[in-house]
Amino acid sequence: MYGAGDVRVENVPDAALQAPTDAVVRVVRTCVCGSDLHPFHTMPASAGGSPMGHEFIGVVEETGSAVSTVKAGDFVIAPFAFFDNTCEFCREGLTTSCVHGGFFSTAQAEAVRVPQADGTLVRAPVGEDSALLPSLLTLSDVLITGHHAAVTAGVDARTSVTVIGDGAVGLLAVLAAKRLGAERIILMGRHKVRTDLGRDFGATDVVAERGDEGIAQVRELTGGHGTHTVLECVGHMPAYEQAYGVVRAGGVISRVGVPQYEEAAVGFGSLFGRNITLTGGPGAQRPYIEELLPDVLEGRIEPGKVFDRTVDLDGVPDGYRAMDAREALKVLVQP
Amino acid sequence: MYGAGDVRVENVPDAALQAPTDAVVRVVRTCVCGSDLHPFHTMPASAGGSPMGHEFIGVVEETGSAVSTVKAGDFVIAPFAFFDNTCEFCREGLTTSCVHGGFFSTAQAEAVRVPQADGTLVRAPVGEDSALLPSLLTLSDVLITGHHAAVTAGVDARTSVTVIGDGAVGLLAVLAAKRLGAERIILMGRHKVRTDLGRDFGATDVVAERGDEGIAQVRELTGGHGTHTVLECVGHMPAYEQAYGVVRAGGVISRVGVPQYEEAAVGFGSLFGRNITLTGGPGAQRPYIEELLPDVLEGRIEPGKVFDRTVDLDGVPDGYRAMDAREALKVLVQP
Repeated sequence: MYGAGDVRVENVPDAALQAPTDAVVRVVRTCVCGSDLHPFHTMPASAGGSPMGHEFIGVVEETGSAVSTVKAGDFVIAPFAFFDNTCEFCREGLTTSCVHGGFFSTAQAEAVRVPQADGTLVRAPVGEDSALLPSLLTLSDVLITGHHAAVTAGVDARTSVTVIGDGAVGLLAVLAAKRLGAERIILMGRHKVRTDLGRDFGATDVVAERGDEGIAQVRELTGGHGTHTVLECVGHMPAYEQAYGVVRAGGVISRVGVPQYEEAAVGFGSLFGRNITLTGGPGAQRPYIEELLPDVLEGRIEPGKVFDRTVDLDGVPDGYRAMDAREALKVLVQP
Repeated sequence: MYGAGDVRVENVPDAALQAPTDAVVRVVRTCVCGSDLHPFHTMPASAGGSPMGHEFIGVVEETGSAVSTVKAGDFVIAPFAFFDNTCEFCREGLTTSCVHGGFFSTAQAEAVRVPQADGTLVRAPVGEDSALLPSLLTLSDVLITGHHAAVTAGVDARTSVTVIGDGAVGLLAVLAAKRLGAERIILMGRHKVRTDLGRDFGATDVVAERGDEGIAQVRELTGGHGTHTVLECVGHMPAYEQAYGVVRAGGVISRVGVPQYEEAAVGFGSLFGRNITLTGGPGAQRPYIEELLPDVLEGRIEPGKVFDRTVDLDGVPDGYRAMDAREALKVLVQP
């Protein structure tokens, strides 16, 4: 990406091992993320450009001398962060705060260098022609991110849920909330094709209105009080404002859309006075992949339904355009 | 209070029953709160003035026809909020969000009208001459507020704790954290007499520095990472900034100091990127009083030590001045 709206496909040096803990993974599937659209809107023009992409599944091509848990030929899932899976944060399950960690940023490519390969890569017993590839790819980001929203918000059978955003993360937050037992899931989104998929994933109500009108509708659906939990899956300020508008007193807002703001309302009138909890953050926690993988492999959930278009690498620029124009919900890339 | 720095003692109409659910309570002890100092600094001059005070214990003088759980002559503790203790929020223990509730604002007086008396007042088996009165009065606000910070932050034996603020709430947040099993409690405060009391209550470390230097010290004390929980007991922006500076990745900041700001940093660099949770709010939850009262009555905790000066009603203006000048930690008022 060379700036807002300017995505190009270019030849770069091949991914190669740099440290003994690295692996090189040939990308079988990658995709375009809703969060990639943020720089697609705002990135200043740059001469050097930035590589893009943080979601991928693929086949290990080569491993460094210190790598022992994966080997050439293994089919693997990579979360959007890398981590050693041994530091004190990783041992607590917060792999996004690994002391040797970081985030991927070169996955829309033919191959990726994976630091901390032992910690990062999760093997999956499938072949490159598996029908499960789209669903497995959601374990790289959108499914675990939606799951993170639901888990950190404390969703269970006793909590009512509002999901803000009908992008892939929002829809999979619906799926995750349903999977955790939620019986009342209100999806706030305006695009019928998407909200229909949200209903398919478990949404019991859809509110198309936004802002004050949307808040009023959610409150009307919930006896005037709002929902116990709110999963904010957008990242823009109006979504945040909607979140504290629809959350019930004593409730929890979990944000997983990358905030496109640094400051926001948190004082007496927004969060404090009603004892609202604000939580969330990056959700690339390895334990989530291990927890969700069996459900994907055994077909109990089909998160891959969020992909509604497939392109090759040359099609990536048009994939960005299509997602930005909301012609496509989420674009799968088959290099 | 007629404006910043302008506190007067005046005759007003006697507190009287207005609704069948009311009681009138003669105030045996009240006090000046750290939060009273916020308007003492900032309140615009006003011709009408505002009554002040929200903490009191006393004796029931009269009850409305619908009141059944307290009667004239009962010694009672009033939390700083009133509530029916029967609505859906009260049943969940969030009495500050009672649908028939509100906050007291006339307690620095001889008597107070108590709405929702059945829900609000907690009887205590003591006389007006009890040596426990100062400790019982902390159940009205400062102890339950400090306890709320510790509870909502999830303090237990496995969590390290930073308490920001050496006012009465901060010191009792230390006591509450210790009572909940915390083994490492770092108190950030600059006033040695107060921080010494904090050590008495259970603080294991004291950091006198503020801002970046204070943050660096707490991090140094905690292996570079900060503490799992941070109890923010001030309410000013520098305390908030300190809170996200000293909190460990994946940790929790609980605020109980009334925020003197509406907007604050919550984006990737402050909260989101490290999965920090922000929680807290008003802590006048009735179950806390019921939980903590036995510990006060049986002498296991002595929160009343935060009172270091006693005045009569005429002494209240000087009490504000003394607390503002930090000559007094917390001023007890004996009408």
